[in-house]
Amino acid sequence: MKLQSPKGTRDFYPKEMADHNYVIDAWRRVSIRNGYEQIDGPIFETLDLYKIKSGEGIVSELFSFRRTGGDTDYAIRPEFTPTLARMVAAKANALPKPIKWFCTPNFCRAERPQRGRLREFWQWNVDILGLDSPLADAEVIFTAVDLFAELGLTHEQVRVKISHRDTTRHILLKLGVSDDRMLAAFNLLDRREKMDDDAFVKAAADLGLEEHNVKRFDEVCRMTYSIGGLAALRASVGAGVDLSDLEGLDEQLKAFGIADWCEYDLGIVRGLAYYTGTVFEIKEVSGVERAIAGGGRYDKLIELFDGPPTPAVGFGMGDVVLTNVLLDKGLMPEDASPAPDVFLIAASDAGAAQLPAVASQLRRAGLHARFSYKATRNIGKLLRDATTSRARYTVIVDDRISENIVAMKDMASGEQSDVALDQIADQINQ
Amino acid sequence: MKLQSPKGTRDFYPKEMADHNYVIDAWRRVSIRNGYEQIDGPIFETLDLYKIKSGEGIVSELFSFRRTGGDTDYAIRPEFTPTLARMVAAKANALPKPIKWFCTPNFCRAERPQRGRLREFWQWNVDILGLDSPLADAEVIFTAVDLFAELGLTHEQVRVKISHRDTTRHILLKLGVSDDRMLAAFNLLDRREKMDDDAFVKAAADLGLEEHNVKRFDEVCRMTYSIGGLAALRASVGAGVDLSDLEGLDEQLKAFGIADWCEYDLGIVRGLAYYTGTVFEIKEVSGVERAIAGGGRYDKLIELFDGPPTPAVGFGMGDVVLTNVLLDKGLMPEDASPAPDVFLIAASDAGAAQLPAVASQLRRAGLHARFSYKATRNIGKLLRDATTSRARYTVIVDDRISENIVAMKDMASGEQSDVALDQIADQINQ
Repeated sequence: MKLQSPKGTRDFYPKEMADHNYVIDAWRRVSIRNGYEQIDGPIFETLDLYKIKSGEGIVSELFSFRRTGGDTDYAIRPEFTPTLARMVAAKANALPKPIKWFCTPNFCRAERPQRGRLREFWQWNVDILGLDSPLADAEVIFTAVDLFAELGLTHEQVRVKISHRDTTRHILLKLGVSDDRMLAAFNLLDRREKMDDDAFVKAAADLGLEEHNVKRFDEVCRMTYSIGGLAALRASVGAGVDLSDLEGLDEQLKAFGIADWCEYDLGIVRGLAYYTGTVFEIKEVSGVERAIAGGGRYDKLIELFDGPPTPAVGFGMGDVVLTNVLLDKGLMPEDASPAPDVFLIAASDAGAAQLPAVASQLRRAGLHARFSYKATRNIGKLLRDATTSRARYTVIVDDRISENIVAMKDMASGEQSDVALDQIADQINQ
Repeated sequence: MKLQSPKGTRDFYPKEMADHNYVIDAWRRVSIRNGYEQIDGPIFETLDLYKIKSGEGIVSELFSFRRTGGDTDYAIRPEFTPTLARMVAAKANALPKPIKWFCTPNFCRAERPQRGRLREFWQWNVDILGLDSPLADAEVIFTAVDLFAELGLTHEQVRVKISHRDTTRHILLKLGVSDDRMLAAFNLLDRREKMDDDAFVKAAADLGLEEHNVKRFDEVCRMTYSIGGLAALRASVGAGVDLSDLEGLDEQLKAFGIADWCEYDLGIVRGLAYYTGTVFEIKEVSGVERAIAGGGRYDKLIELFDGPPTPAVGFGMGDVVLTNVLLDKGLMPEDASPAPDVFLIAASDAGAAQLPAVASQLRRAGLHARFSYKATRNIGKLLRDATTSRARYTVIVDDRISENIVAMKDMASGEQSDVALDQIADQINQ
């Protein structure tokens, strides 16, 4: 028992780590080319920090602890947003705007492990703060789409489902939901998919809706429109409903060229109370997996953490579902680990004695150089090891190493030629 | 209070994160070119796992916790070795030998924060398992040296101080230390630097040493020899002392070409009981910092974790001291964050409307492209922003974007020319 990894955590052996790095490296590469700067925070924070955003309800989901004799409760981080808000609030005035930050940290939640959900997971967080424009909303969504394209996923496999809480609010106001019941109506919208019809009708009636508006509300939960297709939404909801927020976003989604990847889905509200505008969820189209990512605009949050009013939009994308999707679609490379430039083998005892010296010289020149630790001088066997290692070149070291001459074999073409030791790096890098 | 990061932890804003990544990326790059495969384990383990290696004494240094209603104590990892041993033991027979693994995880220890020591830190772990040869000892030391060279440190700034517990044991046996008091003698050797003379003499006498041997023991604590200079050690300790272990290591250190970086220092034993052969510490030469790294051979540890007998050697190198050394020596880049390939600015309203489209096209082509979010059309001001961004090129978008033509300025040479939109990526990558 004590010799097993804790429930819901993972041991990353080299193969699993290579897959893991394949995802994390793509997150980082795409973030950087989209102009985000990387940040990170502590692996644990004060428990109180997490209550600010989520209330006492979060505590049971956390791995929390208190030091013997201490007076402060801490918790391993279950998400990044409170740390982000704390960091922005602390230096809000010193930070150039817009703030474009990303991170790829690990988190822990004390949930029951199941497909797509583990107790320790990694999550890509992408945020733009200080820019009150649908340009920012569209750019974070573009960033997610850029990641999918980078990993070989297509808009036929992944969809960004977008809504806007203000638009939804205007539609619900017209149906007769009063503002003091709006959050309850959002929660009902959020849960619609998991409810049976009777329970929904009862809950909607409890919001004070007349019968025909309950039916209409139910339809709203399923309304979807393509990007550039807001005229159809306009026709459906009729006059007097303010769609300007979605219309502004629509322009920007088209500007970023990602209309094909996105759709409006009024059933999306996101459960979290802190979202204030655009909300979105990203789903694998077949629907068998949990959401790949979720996000939205949260313009009031930085104030909650004692910072100045700061418009903000962002998303989180976990590694577990994304990796499942990549594996399902055959998009995870068979071996994502780095292949050696050179594999060194010895054809004589004098050559074997020089393998470390040759390896150290090549490594210092920046080459990924491995050598065989085997005592055998059977070149056929050693060449098979070189093939297994996936090295681009095999360097065969024999007695001629005393004259700094080795044989170098191109493993793709099979061509072999003699080369001076100090020429190997140049020849490989050319 | 709740809005501060916990004592001894760090917030990594973009500048701090770039410095942090500079170190972590170097660890990873050097590990890979030296033929190690990356692994990782959970951020927390069962508390019992840490007791296997370190006993009950470790518990007070840990951030440990138990879930409400649960029956298992866990702890945030304070080090990697127990996880490594668990992972090797679990798959020992399935793993090709030698196992060459590295990782760069974060750890937490409930210590008093001070210079070079924080409560959350990162540590590079490098290990070779399954190879019972000084070749492995020398290769892990070479790996550390390769990292220093990669970061611009020289052998005049950093020294690897090496000893071998068997050699030390043979010397101490000749001085009259019996094997049942050997571990106590090692501990005394380890603490010599921090003790005054009287306390040392008393402790050495308590080991049963005669007066002239106490004096001799004190000399041993300070003995240093260069690589290739074991004849001097032989002359000093006289006949009848087995130096074969150090002699074997000596050959390999020379083979890897790192003699200049290393020295034998018989005062090094490493406090931890689990080391079985070679031990080493890496120190900044001036001596003002804590050790940069420490390691050695631990041939019995995998058995302790229910694995088969497995020779093993490795080291750990923390990020805090290493970063201090790099900063002290002026070796940390002024700005280690990735510079943009392209900074986009708009010279007209039509151009501004197309910035997202141009940026998305360049990013999809793999370029790091940023754009100005400012409403101004003052090219002078915008070009200053481009300079601040450190972009290699500025692309100026105006009404001619309708014909897919933009102006591109090389920020190093100042040269500017018109270019077709779809030629930008080729021109930059050429």
